Amino acid sequence: MKQILLSLSPLILLIISSLSYSTMGQTTPKHDGRLTNLKVNEQRILSRINELAKIGRDEKGRGYRVAYSQGDVEGRAWFIGLMKKAGLEVSIDAGGNIIGKRKGKNPSLKPIAFGSHIDMVPDGGNYDGTLGSITALEVIEVLNENKITTDHPLEVLIFQNEEGGLVGSRAMTGNLPKEILSQKSTSGLTFGEGIKALGGNPDKLSEAIRKKGDLAAFLEIHIEQSKVLETRKIDVAIVEGIVGISDWDITVTGMANHAGSTPMNDRQDALIAASKLVLAVNEVVNSYEGAQVGSVGKMSVLPGAPNVIPGKVTMSLQMRDLSQEKVMKMFADIEKCASQIAKETRTEIVFEHLRSSMSTIASQEIQEKMMATAKSLGLSYIKMQSGAGHDTQEMGKLGPVGLLFIPSKDGISHNPIEYSSPSEMAKGANVILHTVMLLDGNIQKP
Amino acid sequence: MKQILLSLSPLILLIISSLSYSTMGQTTPKHDGRLTNLKVNEQRILSRINELAKIGRDEKGRGYRVAYSQGDVEGRAWFIGLMKKAGLEVSIDAGGNIIGKRKGKNPSLKPIAFGSHIDMVPDGGNYDGTLGSITALEVIEVLNENKITTDHPLEVLIFQNEEGGLVGSRAMTGNLPKEILSQKSTSGLTFGEGIKALGGNPDKLSEAIRKKGDLAAFLEIHIEQSKVLETRKIDVAIVEGIVGISDWDITVTGMANHAGSTPMNDRQDALIAASKLVLAVNEVVNSYEGAQVGSVGKMSVLPGAPNVIPGKVTMSLQMRDLSQEKVMKMFADIEKCASQIAKETRTEIVFEHLRSSMSTIASQEIQEKMMATAKSLGLSYIKMQSGAGHDTQEMGKLGPVGLLFIPSKDGISHNPIEYSSPSEMAKGANVILHTVMLLDGNIQKP
Repeated sequence: MKQILLSLSPLILLIISSLSYSTMGQTTPKHDGRLTNLKVNEQRILSRINELAKIGRDEKGRGYRVAYSQGDVEGRAWFIGLMKKAGLEVSIDAGGNIIGKRKGKNPSLKPIAFGSHIDMVPDGGNYDGTLGSITALEVIEVLNENKITTDHPLEVLIFQNEEGGLVGSRAMTGNLPKEILSQKSTSGLTFGEGIKALGGNPDKLSEAIRKKGDLAAFLEIHIEQSKVLETRKIDVAIVEGIVGISDWDITVTGMANHAGSTPMNDRQDALIAASKLVLAVNEVVNSYEGAQVGSVGKMSVLPGAPNVIPGKVTMSLQMRDLSQEKVMKMFADIEKCASQIAKETRTEIVFEHLRSSMSTIASQEIQEKMMATAKSLGLSYIKMQSGAGHDTQEMGKLGPVGLLFIPSKDGISHNPIEYSSPSEMAKGANVILHTVMLLDGNIQKP
Repeated sequence: MKQILLSLSPLILLIISSLSYSTMGQTTPKHDGRLTNLKVNEQRILSRINELAKIGRDEKGRGYRVAYSQGDVEGRAWFIGLMKKAGLEVSIDAGGNIIGKRKGKNPSLKPIAFGSHIDMVPDGGNYDGTLGSITALEVIEVLNENKITTDHPLEVLIFQNEEGGLVGSRAMTGNLPKEILSQKSTSGLTFGEGIKALGGNPDKLSEAIRKKGDLAAFLEIHIEQSKVLETRKIDVAIVEGIVGISDWDITVTGMANHAGSTPMNDRQDALIAASKLVLAVNEVVNSYEGAQVGSVGKMSVLPGAPNVIPGKVTMSLQMRDLSQEKVMKMFADIEKCASQIAKETRTEIVFEHLRSSMSTIASQEIQEKMMATAKSLGLSYIKMQSGAGHDTQEMGKLGPVGLLFIPSKDGISHNPIEYSSPSEMAKGANVILHTVMLLDGNIQKP
């Protein structure tokens, strides 16, 4: 209970329960009666997930729709075909993102956008990103079938190279540094070459930038990538925010020496100090209430021979939380522990702060509408932080965002065995569909 | 006090004190009156140490008398020149070792041998091995100058490639596996090519083998390679034995997972388990009385990214002690801790035993004669285990051995800054000189 924030406040629950689904918000909703009957087509979602899964393989037959690879290009072409069939006006922005537009009744309104990505890590799975992309298209299909035109224009956004570090969404927010264009991506192409291969224009990246306020909202649905929902048998998680990530490099310096002739009490063993520090990090992070995480994922022991006492250890420290203040408090505690450990072990411990990305807080209004939607659809839900990064975190810089998680089997992702069931996907997609409708009916008109 | 065994028993001290230097042992000593006056030539030792230090450099000017290198070949030629000048009958055995013989009065007696090695690690220092080699020659020089002929024949033994794993001494004891001949040594040559370059014959290695009992004794003097003597301001350490070394590989298997989305209490972090185990090894080894050591010198953390929870850690475990029984007891304790840690951390910990070398116990008689010698020379001494390997440990398979340590500045070795002072070297050399004399006068005649 300490790690997962179940912070749905009783007050909000009360408000939701006391309001009927159709009377929430500021203006009269337009789609009240019809809303609860609209349902996504579970079979269509599943068959499209399976169809896309066939596109992009490496020489060993493993999934390889890595950004800019042939599989990625083919997957995008297949997806663009479906978008066009669904009547969307498709374009590729200078950053290589696919944008599919659907007109609204009121062209002066800002678009409500939703989507995700279809690139994958090498040997990845068939749900990460693709779920959000295919369900975004599903929302359009359902609206088409029911001949619904929203007030707001709608946009399906398929970001390029999410796995390579939110490359497409960073291009859209203007946060993609030019230097990256000449660097190699996982595909082997540079990012610049890759963007070109997707139909973007790396020389005119600034044309891809959208201004703050350009979108009325951005919604994404994603697999959870941990097993909280699965373990608790909960249908969906309404994400309160995407954590900020802070990274440090740590260097522990002792004294390399002969592991035979150096008596135990004469040693300055950098690995003893590093081991104490690994455990201290874990203890400090666990000592706080909340969903924060802290990890030492990388460690290198030098000189690294069985008969030499380690003289130097380099290691990583990464902490994530919605609150940067909490992260800095934990770091101060860890520094205090490190100073004590250095003294005890006669070593030196030095921290180098590498970077801290800010957290993205999901829009309160969208969270509330997702909760109301889940409730009226009879789905169970919790609130949760997202410990992993998603395109939503970049979109949060342009306007209000919402992120929804559905269960991932065994919490596994970035792996061919990642899995979410058709009904789990459909439940999540229905929440997105109805949240879009509710937003369309309720967002304050200018 | 726990780590260093100061086990000179009061009983032995009493015996030594109550015997005059010249009346120890079974037969009447031959050199009683003269003995205490014999002294090595400190200046000669120093100038030879300095001269040898000039031979063998790499392209950056660093010491490079690595076995089989040009520097090694030149150093040996220089040394053989001095041996011949000192009247020794010099030969190279099939294993590439240099043997310098001096006749005794009684050709039916087994030779008393002493020596060490002159090869070094890359960028090594000027005392490791060379001290034992040059002081062995010094013993001969002093006997020559004083026109002393011992009863026993004497042999100066300069073993090849000690640093590469006691290669020469293993050839002499018949413990050098043939497979090694085709393997690359540090010099770049294979061991077979290297032995040939030194004048040995790798095709007839068996000719280098000496039978058990072939030598009356083997003595070696070496720098301590730790700072016990220096710290306690003690002149020499009489080595009780060279520890056995036991090696294991340890594999800790957890579950690699996303370091952002996996809650703290859902993790199976292999590095947390490995860190606990590193500390447990240290605690177990420190919980025993004695000079045993235990080290984790090598560790590899997989997959090894700041944003991935470690799924696998491989690490080394090495323990050393004179008593293999104690090592196995410590290992059993460590296994018990590991099983507890595996349970707590939901990981699997597997130990693979790689090898255990047996310890070599120094001859009680030689230890006692070294003590008596040190005492009568007015030198302070302690007993000590050798945690590092030396050619003496191989020679122990052929007959009685004795090993003496002198102080190493800051305990540093295998390093150009390793240092022992001229007077420290001379004190040690005098102990060897007089121990040889005492052994010669006291070893039971057949």
